[in-house]
Amino acid sequence: MKSVATDVLISEVGPRDGLQSIKSIMPTDLKNKWIDALFLSGIREIEVASFVPTKLLPQMADASLVVKHATTHPGLTVMALVPNLRGAQAAIEAGVHKITIPVSASAAHSMANVRKTREEMIEEVKKISQYRNAHAPNVKIEAGISTAFGCTLQGLVPEDDVIWLAEQVILAGADESGLSDTTGYANPAQIKRLFKRLRAAIGNKAGAAHLHNTRGLGLANCLAAFEAGVTSFDSSLGGLGGCPYAPGASGNVVTEDLVFMFEAMGITTGVNLDLLFKARNPLQDGVPQETLYGMVPEAGLPKGFAAATPWSHQ
Amino acid sequence: MKSVATDVLISEVGPRDGLQSIKSIMPTDLKNKWIDALFLSGIREIEVASFVPTKLLPQMADASLVVKHATTHPGLTVMALVPNLRGAQAAIEAGVHKITIPVSASAAHSMANVRKTREEMIEEVKKISQYRNAHAPNVKIEAGISTAFGCTLQGLVPEDDVIWLAEQVILAGADESGLSDTTGYANPAQIKRLFKRLRAAIGNKAGAAHLHNTRGLGLANCLAAFEAGVTSFDSSLGGLGGCPYAPGASGNVVTEDLVFMFEAMGITTGVNLDLLFKARNPLQDGVPQETLYGMVPEAGLPKGFAAATPWSHQ
Repeated sequence: MKSVATDVLISEVGPRDGLQSIKSIMPTDLKNKWIDALFLSGIREIEVASFVPTKLLPQMADASLVVKHATTHPGLTVMALVPNLRGAQAAIEAGVHKITIPVSASAAHSMANVRKTREEMIEEVKKISQYRNAHAPNVKIEAGISTAFGCTLQGLVPEDDVIWLAEQVILAGADESGLSDTTGYANPAQIKRLFKRLRAAIGNKAGAAHLHNTRGLGLANCLAAFEAGVTSFDSSLGGLGGCPYAPGASGNVVTEDLVFMFEAMGITTGVNLDLLFKARNPLQDGVPQETLYGMVPEAGLPKGFAAATPWSHQ
Repeated sequence: MKSVATDVLISEVGPRDGLQSIKSIMPTDLKNKWIDALFLSGIREIEVASFVPTKLLPQMADASLVVKHATTHPGLTVMALVPNLRGAQAAIEAGVHKITIPVSASAAHSMANVRKTREEMIEEVKKISQYRNAHAPNVKIEAGISTAFGCTLQGLVPEDDVIWLAEQVILAGADESGLSDTTGYANPAQIKRLFKRLRAAIGNKAGAAHLHNTRGLGLANCLAAFEAGVTSFDSSLGGLGGCPYAPGASGNVVTEDLVFMFEAMGITTGVNLDLLFKARNPLQDGVPQETLYGMVPEAGLPKGFAAATPWSHQ
């Protein structure tokens, strides 16, 4: 199985974003099997863990072990979320290829989420970058701007704040900065406008779209982001994680449905849908009490469906 | 409450498409209350019934009564579905403003659905148009091309067939022809391509997008249709109807979520979301055993949300 250039990159965040949002703790060996199945389906970037204090997130206590296993897959970019320098040091120690740092555009959310102001978080990005430069120059740093499209605490988040923050984290040494619709507030017009502004501000350091489906607009927003030039998308298998307000709803965009949309449109993801559906099994084994979402896995592929990604079933 | 020009027209199909897809029969007075609530929210086109033999669809036995009630609302376009001339005669007799005739682009689906070939359905459209011209020249005729994006029976539906059929129904006297994703097979690229071809073929007689959410792409497809110039959209309150394969899934696009998407984007629908949510109550009262879908009604409007349609709450 060799890597091929694809039109878009699907970055699976379930093992981090999904698992840290639910109460049950998935055993390490099942996390590893899940990651194996995702890799087998063609997924080439996975956010496998977050490096945070175990007492805060016991679901992530095995972060180093999971990273070590994931890095055995050739061609897989292994990511971890870190909120601060200490987490970054642990992630680099474990062997990650890429770090993602959440930086909130909402002043209120920033204090609530990481107990730091936005300015303090920019300083944290700078410290992490300096540490990376000195000790692990090959590790990439992404700083994702969360609550970029609105905040459940402060409501409106000024677009100027979002762009300012993205510029600051790049100046602080991040390699890329994407935008996250943490609250599921975004609409397609806003997505296009803000991602275009992002690209105008930081050029090809503009990163992934991390979008939620809280109000049903997840795929429409991904489509809008794609049309605005975004080629990297975060999503979660089975829609695990996020803030599941609604019955049948999910926080994160469902990977299966997102891959289906792109493949149906003739846009290659590198992912095989049949194998992706099979990756739901180890996930469900690991969190038997959770409901997995996904419209395409339930409805099945259309009769005569032809995917964009060429693939030989072996 | 006066009519205002809006950017898009939301055509509510729940009282027809929704109610005929479920087993329970909604009492006439509750159908009327539901239609009243929809009108109050700003909806200005409703497909209220289908005129088909009662033994086939007992849910629609009161079609004439429902039409008569609906036509008491000034400014409301009252539509009904008819499969043939006899149904059209009954609908016109009852006082509808607009008739919609389903014409399937899939030869296999056409036989299964109406026991007629596509050529026989074109003849039926011609007969209905001639009857309309002679007896009710003010009544509009829409011929919607169903299975326009694929068919569960024959799989691929050639795009040339779809466009040919749309041209034929216009030649047969229909005032407009839209495209229906009956099977939930469509993707945004296909939507754009086919609606652009439709407009190139029949100009401003190109009609509504009737899209389903079976594979989660309902709103993304509506967005694509809007970007391709479509301004009229069918949807169903609470996602009632269609083919609900998946838990939390629905067949028809959910009106509440569709209106939210457009209003959030700054595109006026003329519909007030708070009042639209309230229209779920008479619907739920009428079909107490059915689950109503809708992500926005469950999650609520974003904090600080501003709709595009100006509206004074009274």
